[in-house]
Amino acid sequence: MFLKNINLINFKNYSEKELEFNQGINCFVGNNGIGKTNILDSINYLSICKSFINNIDSQNIKNGEDFFIIQGVFEKDNDNDTIYCSIRKNKKKIFKKNKKEYEKLSHHIGLYPIVVILPSDSNLINDGSETRRRFIDMLISQFDNSYLNLLIKYNNALLQRNVIIRNFHSQNSFNNEILEIWNEQLIIYGTQIYNKRKEVIQQIVPIFLSFYNSITDSNIENVRFEYKSQLNNENFNSLLISNIEKDLKLQYTTSGIHRDDIEFLFNDCPLKKFSSQGQQKTFIICLKLAQYSLNYTKTNIKPILLFDDIFDKLDSSRIKKIFKIIDNDNFGQIFITDTNHQRIKEAISNISKENTFFYL
Amino acid sequence: MFLKNINLINFKNYSEKELEFNQGINCFVGNNGIGKTNILDSINYLSICKSFINNIDSQNIKNGEDFFIIQGVFEKDNDNDTIYCSIRKNKKKIFKKNKKEYEKLSHHIGLYPIVVILPSDSNLINDGSETRRRFIDMLISQFDNSYLNLLIKYNNALLQRNVIIRNFHSQNSFNNEILEIWNEQLIIYGTQIYNKRKEVIQQIVPIFLSFYNSITDSNIENVRFEYKSQLNNENFNSLLISNIEKDLKLQYTTSGIHRDDIEFLFNDCPLKKFSSQGQQKTFIICLKLAQYSLNYTKTNIKPILLFDDIFDKLDSSRIKKIFKIIDNDNFGQIFITDTNHQRIKEAISNISKENTFFYL
Repeated sequence: MFLKNINLINFKNYSEKELEFNQGINCFVGNNGIGKTNILDSINYLSICKSFINNIDSQNIKNGEDFFIIQGVFEKDNDNDTIYCSIRKNKKKIFKKNKKEYEKLSHHIGLYPIVVILPSDSNLINDGSETRRRFIDMLISQFDNSYLNLLIKYNNALLQRNVIIRNFHSQNSFNNEILEIWNEQLIIYGTQIYNKRKEVIQQIVPIFLSFYNSITDSNIENVRFEYKSQLNNENFNSLLISNIEKDLKLQYTTSGIHRDDIEFLFNDCPLKKFSSQGQQKTFIICLKLAQYSLNYTKTNIKPILLFDDIFDKLDSSRIKKIFKIIDNDNFGQIFITDTNHQRIKEAISNISKENTFFYL
Repeated sequence: MFLKNINLINFKNYSEKELEFNQGINCFVGNNGIGKTNILDSINYLSICKSFINNIDSQNIKNGEDFFIIQGVFEKDNDNDTIYCSIRKNKKKIFKKNKKEYEKLSHHIGLYPIVVILPSDSNLINDGSETRRRFIDMLISQFDNSYLNLLIKYNNALLQRNVIIRNFHSQNSFNNEILEIWNEQLIIYGTQIYNKRKEVIQQIVPIFLSFYNSITDSNIENVRFEYKSQLNNENFNSLLISNIEKDLKLQYTTSGIHRDDIEFLFNDCPLKKFSSQGQQKTFIICLKLAQYSLNYTKTNIKPILLFDDIFDKLDSSRIKKIFKIIDNDNFGQIFITDTNHQRIKEAISNISKENTFFYL
């Protein structure tokens, strides 16, 4: 699967733009503000129906215009699929495959998978646990259709239970039977989510480590990550029972998979505080490349890889090794941005994949 | 004023390190994880008694050791001042000037000012208003000794007023006389803080604009920033009176300078969502250089400029223009990090300031 071309009208800084891509490496080169990342973002739209920069669709319309259109042709299983996305101010988003509009956007997501590596992914290290839960949830839902549904059901049960707990508090009452209805729901869905998260983390860790150790010296940089869940040590039912007093006092449910985290470690200390910016960037890239590999293994489709600002923070030795990893049949089509054409030309001079430069 | 040398023992990744600096540009070059940023951080310690990375002093001690020492000699007004900082696990921080220990660390801060430009400064754009208030507060307190005191008094009055409001709520009572005691305090200190913030923003905006417009084309990139304060349109007393019902309902003080913000604009839209990463980086660098200039004007001391990862996200045209700005008698000693010695050598080849390379 790969993207053959893209056609933009009034998207961000572009009035009109047509680009033809190859199946290997496509490099967008140009000065700050020229719109390199915007091209990647338009590819993101074609794959997952939204921007990775600005969630408010209408704000991606070019200044002074009323609509934008993104159209692109994917080749998949020897077929050409034309994907069309248009946003008009105050109208609903229109998304079509081969001129036929989707009933639900969710039917499109996953058909043309991508993995995106952005400078802002450092949030995975620096933000709170919610960002890391979102990462693992997105990862699983890319190849497991039932997962998103489990999450919705769990979150609904959690919401209901919290309302009940707050009612108990304000009415100074308690009714265990009502509580148990929602406990049961939480346990059914929460345990399934826990098992899926645990399994996927077990699968991704060795892939991640093989990438990281091929880039760095594992004697100096020992990295790993661990799934932190209250359910690691105790079953969900006994957690809910033993924490009920705390829950009533704090007026929300304190135990469950909504408190899960992934702990990133560098030489057995928290990565965030004990590693350099370049080491953190390396960590994130390996995590995303591992996501790519796992996704490919599970679905047998090679995702499209979008790589924004690949040279940001990395020394030349690491960049060389990263290019060596992706110059491989396990990786498909790749899009890269850079401000400096000389630098990127040199970097990919030894790559066997076909490459094309777009000077924006 | 400039830093002549530095001597590190057990600081972060360094067991022992001695470096002699020049008065111009000092470049630290080396691969990821070698400790370039750590050298800048040690200079930060000598100037403001703490790390810009890790606020917990003991976590900056080299793995497996019990203490670290940073010592450096500043030349200021033709005198040599030896500054000594040591941290020992579970002991208090020791800070000395010419072998004499400071009674209070606050007596040291401001004597050897620095301005630091870090990749993480993008937080100024992406985080909530608190980060921008902290920036403006730090900026003012560098040349106005009374400012920090005003802030402490304001925050204390705010805390007291919030406690009283919560008590009113839980006891279902109201006493305007008690409230007015704290209103009066808030108004006295808040109005002074407001006036100082307003004045300094008026002073810094034209400096910022002159830098930004010398780097970019102002017809394409029109930037500005504005001081947002509830006190812009109404005096503090009438704000407190008209919002009292809201305050009682929400149980905290909803009006005052603790809700101030600085709005960053790009072509009249929010900078955060409508500009590229390179444009945002340019914005931050110009803001920090303007901070530098204002600080120099107010104190007549040229701060030391620390520039971590200068090439991150910027195209070569912008980098050239930034070097042109700092290659000027209005700027003093400068420290820069980069992973690529060839790139930085080329970039500073036309600079008239003396330069030294440290290959770490």
